[in-house]
Amino acid sequence: MPCKNCSINPVIELPNSNVNLCKNCFIKYFESKAFKTIRQYNLLEDSNSIAVGISGGKDSLTVLYILNKIASTRKNLKLIAILIDEGIHDYRDITIENAKRFCKENKIELKIYSYKDEFGKSLDEFLKIMNDRKIKLKACTICGVFRRYLLNKKARELKVNKLATGHNLDDEAQAILMNQFKGNIDVSARLGPITGIIKDKRFIPRIKPLYFLTEKEVATYAFLKKFVDKYCECPNAEESYRIAVRDMLNEFENRYPGSKHAIINSFIEILPNLKEKFKNVNSIKDCKICNEPCSSDVCKACELLEKLR
Amino acid sequence: MPCKNCSINPVIELPNSNVNLCKNCFIKYFESKAFKTIRQYNLLEDSNSIAVGISGGKDSLTVLYILNKIASTRKNLKLIAILIDEGIHDYRDITIENAKRFCKENKIELKIYSYKDEFGKSLDEFLKIMNDRKIKLKACTICGVFRRYLLNKKARELKVNKLATGHNLDDEAQAILMNQFKGNIDVSARLGPITGIIKDKRFIPRIKPLYFLTEKEVATYAFLKKFVDKYCECPNAEESYRIAVRDMLNEFENRYPGSKHAIINSFIEILPNLKEKFKNVNSIKDCKICNEPCSSDVCKACELLEKLR
Repeated sequence: MPCKNCSINPVIELPNSNVNLCKNCFIKYFESKAFKTIRQYNLLEDSNSIAVGISGGKDSLTVLYILNKIASTRKNLKLIAILIDEGIHDYRDITIENAKRFCKENKIELKIYSYKDEFGKSLDEFLKIMNDRKIKLKACTICGVFRRYLLNKKARELKVNKLATGHNLDDEAQAILMNQFKGNIDVSARLGPITGIIKDKRFIPRIKPLYFLTEKEVATYAFLKKFVDKYCECPNAEESYRIAVRDMLNEFENRYPGSKHAIINSFIEILPNLKEKFKNVNSIKDCKICNEPCSSDVCKACELLEKLR
Repeated sequence: MPCKNCSINPVIELPNSNVNLCKNCFIKYFESKAFKTIRQYNLLEDSNSIAVGISGGKDSLTVLYILNKIASTRKNLKLIAILIDEGIHDYRDITIENAKRFCKENKIELKIYSYKDEFGKSLDEFLKIMNDRKIKLKACTICGVFRRYLLNKKARELKVNKLATGHNLDDEAQAILMNQFKGNIDVSARLGPITGIIKDKRFIPRIKPLYFLTEKEVATYAFLKKFVDKYCECPNAEESYRIAVRDMLNEFENRYPGSKHAIINSFIEILPNLKEKFKNVNSIKDCKICNEPCSSDVCKACELLEKLR
């Protein structure tokens, strides 16, 4: 079937419909969907500076590109890209080069912060310590805690109003099910197109402009726009719980198209109730070691660092 | 591993634990879990008569047995079993015989109502009409609507306070995901150990004493108690959406034990919020044809009957 609008060769069949779109029509569709999310959920409200957490991969460069499109028409909106260099040989060094090239081409300021500088060691070095001392921690756990910690801290130090990430519809549907299947429904209250229910100014609200766009749509957009030369996979990626949920969801979506969107729509419908229900669950304290905001006496990052010292 | 309590041969390993139980200890565990659900959710509150919807299968005979245990110690609690005979040759006729035997042995009054008497034709006859006229409806759709309709109507006519069913934890987890994956989160507001959010006296509140017991646990209990001679499957059961969700959940539970319980616990946590949110969604009208309560001008049963006339 040709493109719905201009009858030329299509590049994609849209999810949950029999609509095919050509390259130009798909790009228009994609961008207007991201813009709509930004408008509808007031993602840029009261904002004159935004940090975008990027890895140099397809999702983060797409969200950076979309926000830069908006910034280029709004004089009072400043954009800074933040990249966290975990220090993963043969992987992050490659995506960093891509991120640098992208930011240079698009004239976007790029700040790079490394585990080495901030925590004293690279992830590769931490993993070696864990291996030597037989500490049973997953690489992804360490990475997740340290990256979130640094992104928030650096975004705050840069005095931005929001921190944007490249999370797409698939990521969010997976997170919803992961929390639900583990009985952590309270954690889901922190999801959504804009997060930051915790009323503490030291937590920078995170926004997800690609919230309603699927993995496939983002990948297609990034491919058509030539954002990424080659696909790199993290050497530490392993058979994780997220991957099990992702595969199950993909199988279900194949059999019953629309399942992922339904999960997101169901979630969006009850999200205000979840936020209300869990708004005061955790009072925010100051980490005794680093002074960053956290829910216990010591923040998760310092707790991990203690273990790895 | 032997039974946790008495070190003899176990009959079951409990879900989410390494606990094994022998026959007697398992029966005690099972019954006390059902009793606890009844207490905790006030399932028998303000009730002096309960109807139990039974099919003659393992789940419904188990819930009937459990409630009869309670009724035998409470003089002011009356129990009536209701069986809906859809008219499915070589299937329902077999389970009806089992239900009759069970009720006779346990001295429980049994009322049988048939599609033939109530709607003019048996399910087998309806299916023949559908086949002849190429009406595309699933047998399970017809059955579900007619059975729910009759169970409620007959329970009300019998002036009982509650209608108990044999739904177990697996049934409920499947229903939660089915609604979520289809975007019908409002329908989930009608789930839970006790339903009947609609404030209309003509809807008899339904209770599910086996809510926190898994399919496997109920099957084991029914087997040990010899409630069912042989397993019959409905000849109309087909590759349904519920079966796809059930298989996916079973696979997930195998890989990540505790998933089903987590789904139920997450759900129970937000159920009060769901009930509050969707309490006034549908105002109740009177069906123009049969006068039964429903959400549109004509109830689903009459709508189907019109199609099949």
